[in-house]
Amino acid sequence: MLKAEVKVELKKGVSDPEGNNILKALHLLGYHEVKKVRVARVTELEIDLSEKPKAEKKIEEMCQRLLTNPVIHDYSITILG
Amino acid sequence: MLKAEVKVELKKGVSDPEGNNILKALHLLGYHEVKKVRVARVTELEIDLSEKPKAEKKIEEMCQRLLTNPVIHDYSITILG
Repeated sequence: MLKAEVKVELKKGVSDPEGNNILKALHLLGYHEVKKVRVARVTELEIDLSEKPKAEKKIEEMCQRLLTNPVIHDYSITILG
Repeated sequence: MLKAEVKVELKKGVSDPEGNNILKALHLLGYHEVKKVRVARVTELEIDLSEKPKAEKKIEEMCQRLLTNPVIHDYSITILG
Protein backbone atom coordinates (compact mmCIF):
# COMPACT_ATOMS: atom_id res chain seq x y z
CA MET A 1 0.00 0.00 0.00
CA LEU A 2 1.38 3.39 -1.00
CA LYS A 3 0.31 6.82 0.13
CA ALA A 4 0.42 9.70 -2.30
CA GLU A 5 -0.59 13.33 -2.39
CA VAL A 6 -1.80 15.29 -5.37
CA LYS A 7 -1.64 19.05 -4.92
CA VAL A 8 -3.89 20.91 -7.32
CA GLU A 9 -3.60 24.69 -7.58
CA LEU A 10 -4.92 27.31 -9.93
CA LYS A 11 -2.51 28.42 -12.66
CA LYS A 12 -0.95 31.83 -12.30
CA GLY A 13 -3.28 34.39 -13.82
CA VAL A 14 -6.42 32.37 -13.09
CA SER A 15 -8.47 34.27 -10.54
CA ASP A 16 -9.14 32.58 -7.21
CA PRO A 17 -12.48 33.76 -5.78
CA GLU A 18 -12.17 31.57 -2.68
CA GLY A 19 -8.72 33.01 -1.92
CA ASN A 20 -9.99 36.54 -2.53
CA ASN A 21 -12.89 36.02 -0.15
CA ILE A 22 -10.55 34.73 2.56
CA LEU A 23 -8.32 37.78 1.99
CA LYS A 24 -11.30 40.12 2.38
CA ALA A 25 -12.42 38.35 5.55
CA LEU A 26 -8.89 38.56 7.01
CA HIS A 27 -8.82 42.29 6.28
CA LEU A 28 -12.22 42.72 7.96
CA LEU A 29 -10.78 40.98 11.02
CA GLY A 30 -7.90 43.47 10.99
CA TYR A 31 -5.12 41.37 9.41
CA HIS A 32 -4.06 44.02 6.91
CA GLU A 33 -0.53 42.59 6.74
CA VAL A 34 -1.88 39.72 4.61
CA LYS A 35 -1.41 40.74 0.96
CA LYS A 36 -2.40 37.70 -1.03
CA VAL A 37 -4.25 34.43 -0.46
CA ARG A 38 -4.43 31.46 -2.84
CA VAL A 39 -6.19 28.21 -2.12
CA ALA A 40 -5.02 24.80 -3.28
CA ARG A 41 -6.52 21.36 -2.82
CA VAL A 42 -4.56 18.33 -1.70
CA THR A 43 -6.00 14.91 -2.48
CA GLU A 44 -4.45 12.16 -0.36
CA LEU A 45 -4.68 8.72 -1.90
CA GLU A 46 -4.05 5.26 -0.49
CA ILE A 47 -3.34 2.99 -3.38
CA ASP A 48 -2.83 -0.76 -3.39
CA LEU A 49 0.34 -0.92 -5.48
CA SER A 50 3.88 -1.56 -4.36
CA GLU A 51 5.92 -0.08 -7.22
CA LYS A 52 6.31 3.66 -6.98
CA PRO A 53 6.83 4.36 -10.72
CA LYS A 54 3.72 2.36 -11.58
CA ALA A 55 1.71 4.20 -8.92
CA GLU A 56 2.95 7.54 -10.17
CA LYS A 57 1.93 6.70 -13.73
CA LYS A 58 -1.56 5.65 -12.57
CA ILE A 59 -2.00 8.80 -10.50
CA GLU A 60 -0.82 10.94 -13.43
CA GLU A 61 -3.60 9.31 -15.46
CA MET A 62 -6.17 9.96 -12.68
CA CYS A 63 -5.12 13.61 -12.65
CA GLN A 64 -5.70 13.91 -16.37
CA ARG A 65 -9.03 12.11 -16.28
CA LEU A 66 -10.63 13.27 -13.03
CA LEU A 67 -8.65 15.16 -10.44
CA THR A 68 -7.65 18.26 -12.38
CA ASN A 69 -8.81 20.54 -15.14
CA PRO A 70 -5.70 21.11 -17.27
CA VAL A 71 -7.09 24.41 -18.58
CA ILE A 72 -6.96 26.10 -15.18
CA HIS A 73 -4.94 23.84 -12.87
CA ASP A 74 -1.31 23.02 -12.21
CA TYR A 75 -0.65 19.90 -10.18
CA SER A 76 2.13 17.98 -8.54
CA ILE A 77 2.25 14.37 -7.38
CA THR A 78 4.20 13.29 -4.30
CA ILE A 79 4.56 9.61 -3.45
CA LEU A 80 4.96 9.41 0.33
CA GLY A 81 5.73 5.67 0.37
CA MET B 1 7.31 39.63 2.77
CA LEU B 2 6.91 36.05 3.98
CA LYS B 3 5.10 33.18 2.33
CA ALA B 4 3.31 30.63 4.44
CA GLU B 5 1.07 27.64 3.94
CA VAL B 6 -1.73 26.47 6.19
CA LYS B 7 -2.81 22.89 5.56
CA VAL B 8 -6.26 22.15 6.92
CA GLU B 9 -7.49 18.58 7.00
CA LEU B 10 -10.39 16.79 8.57
CA LYS B 11 -9.66 15.06 11.87
CA LYS B 12 -9.42 11.29 11.85
CA GLY B 13 -12.90 9.88 12.30
CA VAL B 14 -14.64 12.85 10.68
CA SER B 15 -16.23 11.67 7.46
CA ASP B 16 -15.03 13.25 4.23
CA PRO B 17 -17.87 13.29 1.67
CA GLU B 18 -15.74 15.00 -0.99
CA GLY B 19 -13.04 12.37 -0.62
CA ASN B 20 -15.62 9.59 -0.72
CA ASN B 21 -17.13 10.97 -3.92
CA ILE B 22 -13.70 11.13 -5.57
CA LEU B 23 -13.10 7.52 -4.48
CA LYS B 24 -16.40 6.41 -6.04
CA ALA B 25 -15.62 8.26 -9.26
CA LEU B 26 -12.15 6.68 -9.44
CA HIS B 27 -13.71 3.23 -8.98
CA LEU B 28 -16.23 3.98 -11.75
CA LEU B 29 -13.28 4.85 -13.99
CA GLY B 30 -11.72 1.47 -13.15
CA TYR B 31 -9.09 2.50 -10.59
CA HIS B 32 -10.00 -0.17 -8.06
CA GLU B 33 -6.49 -0.12 -6.59
CA VAL B 34 -7.33 3.17 -4.85
CA LYS B 35 -8.56 2.29 -1.36
CA LYS B 36 -8.98 5.62 0.38
CA VAL B 37 -9.20 9.30 -0.55
CA ARG B 38 -9.09 12.27 1.82
CA VAL B 39 -9.16 15.88 0.75
CA ALA B 40 -7.29 18.70 2.48
CA ARG B 41 -7.16 22.41 1.77
CA VAL B 42 -3.96 24.43 1.59
CA THR B 43 -4.22 28.18 2.06
CA GLU B 44 -1.15 30.01 0.78
CA LEU B 45 -0.62 33.40 2.38
CA GLU B 46 1.69 36.28 1.50
CA ILE B 47 2.15 38.31 4.61
CA ASP B 48 3.96 41.61 5.02
CA LEU B 49 6.03 40.74 8.09
CA SER B 50 9.72 39.96 8.30
CA GLU B 51 9.95 38.02 11.58
CA LYS B 52 9.01 34.39 11.26
CA PRO B 53 7.92 33.82 14.89
CA LYS B 54 5.65 36.87 14.76
CA ALA B 55 4.16 35.72 11.45
CA GLU B 56 3.57 32.25 12.82
CA LYS B 57 1.78 33.66 15.87
CA LYS B 58 -0.45 35.84 13.66
CA ILE B 59 -1.27 32.92 11.36
CA GLU B 60 -2.05 30.71 14.35
CA GLU B 61 -4.55 33.40 15.40
CA MET B 62 -6.06 33.54 11.89
CA CYS B 63 -6.47 29.77 11.97
CA GLN B 64 -8.37 29.97 15.24
CA ARG B 65 -10.56 32.84 14.12
CA LEU B 66 -11.26 32.13 10.46
CA LEU B 67 -9.33 29.47 8.59
CA THR B 68 -10.27 26.36 10.53
CA ASN B 69 -13.06 24.84 12.56
CA PRO B 70 -11.32 23.31 15.58
CA VAL B 71 -14.17 20.86 16.13
CA ILE B 72 -13.51 19.01 12.87
CA HIS B 73 -10.15 20.22 11.53
CA ASP B 74 -6.49 19.60 12.22
CA TYR B 75 -4.09 22.11 10.77
CA SER B 76 -0.40 22.76 10.31
CA ILE B 77 1.42 25.99 9.51
CA THR B 78 4.56 26.07 7.36
CA ILE B 79 6.51 29.29 6.95
CA LEU B 80 8.23 29.08 3.56
CA GLY B 81 10.26 32.27 4.07
